[in-house]
Amino acid sequence: MPYVNIKVTKENGGLTKEEKQKLIKGVTDLLQETLHKNPASTVVVIDEVDMDNYGLGAEQISDRRKRGE
Amino acid sequence: MPYVNIKVTKENGGLTKEEKQKLIKGVTDLLQETLHKNPASTVVVIDEVDMDNYGLGAEQISDRRKRGE
Amino acid sequence: MPYVNIKVTKENGGLTKEEKQKLIKGVTDLLQETLHKNPASTVVVIDEVDMDNYGLGAEQISDRRKRGE
Amino acid sequence: MPYVNIKVTKENGGLTKEEKQKLIKGVTDLLQETLHKNPASTVVVIDEVDMDNYGLGAEQISDRRKRGE
Amino acid sequence: MPYVNIKVTKENGGLTKEEKQKLIKGVTDLLQETLHKNPASTVVVIDEVDMDNYGLGAEQISDRRKRGE
Amino acid sequence: MPYVNIKVTKENGGLTKEEKQKLIKGVTDLLQETLHKNPASTVVVIDEVDMDNYGLGAEQISDRRKRGE
Repeated sequence: MPYVNIKVTKENGGLTKEEKQKLIKGVTDLLQETLHKNPASTVVVIDEVDMDNYGLGAEQISDRRKRGE
Repeated sequence: MPYVNIKVTKENGGLTKEEKQKLIKGVTDLLQETLHKNPASTVVVIDEVDMDNYGLGAEQISDRRKRGE
Repeated sequence: MPYVNIKVTKENGGLTKEEKQKLIKGVTDLLQETLHKNPASTVVVIDEVDMDNYGLGAEQISDRRKRGE
Repeated sequence: MPYVNIKVTKENGGLTKEEKQKLIKGVTDLLQETLHKNPASTVVVIDEVDMDNYGLGAEQISDRRKRGE
Repeated sequence: MPYVNIKVTKENGGLTKEEKQKLIKGVTDLLQETLHKNPASTVVVIDEVDMDNYGLGAEQISDRRKRGE
Repeated sequence: MPYVNIKVTKENGGLTKEEKQKLIKGVTDLLQETLHKNPASTVVVIDEVDMDNYGLGAEQISDRRKRGE
């Protein structure tokens, strides 16, 4: 019954369905292996955040990407 | 002054305005009845999440819905 | 499979077990009645926040309480 | 390495890039000045929420705005 | 620069340091493998929630555990 | 009516009351100056997270601190 929230920037059109599935399965498996949590009640929510809305080092990710970071 | 965040999947075009209003009022009333919290400063935020971005039982809800779950 | 997070201040020793149960049941019932969501996979997490850590109107709730607010 | 999440309603087309940058820089500077936190690992995420999805005083912000509030 | 929040119930005294480390490393590796995200700016926060404060199926986890669930 | 959540590690006994007040006031003022938001309904919640529970670069902050980082 764990709850996991993953926030990543939305880049190049956003994550593919397969990438999201891989994250959901990977986190659920990790919680089962590490803490024996029941996958059936493990909830995972992925938030894709606009690069203008995500800041690191006092800058927007969109600006960091323009510098190749 | 409580803060409540509700995350649900976005299905069939998403929640109607009335459904959102019902959730906001229902949660605010519940906090007033149960804990005597002041509705005037009770904040409720509803996040509608894409079915590909919401996982349960290591699967995306979109896939579970295809199986009628 | 909705996820609900409720943040309230921790006052007078915190919520009783019964108050928490009432909030969990009340929110789960509301989601079932409003959106026909399955209670079995509805997750509710209650965070009790120290009054010094909760701000409203640029003030800590602890200070507002000292003024009887 | 602090993490800050800011939720505001999406009004008049949403925040401008400059407003988002100002929030990101302002919060990062505040954490550096107050707690000497390293800007390089300070993460800020801004969520812009639909006015129908944001409730205060048991009402949707969209309805409060119609009354000029 | 992804941000991940994991909420689990606090049981049997809570997670060990090693379990927390395993979750932090496991999620960071998953994001690197799946989305090529830089571990150096991947933030993971683990919240351990009291079993009375965590609800599933309209019940507190503490009560479900008493029934062996 | 914005909502802001600040997560920082709990170090050296945690933040002082004054530091928390400074963060609450600083963020509320920033939202008023930048977006003309009403302080009276601006909610700020500060979460102090155990250093074992906070990960950056696939490591727990507690371990990074032992290396003087």
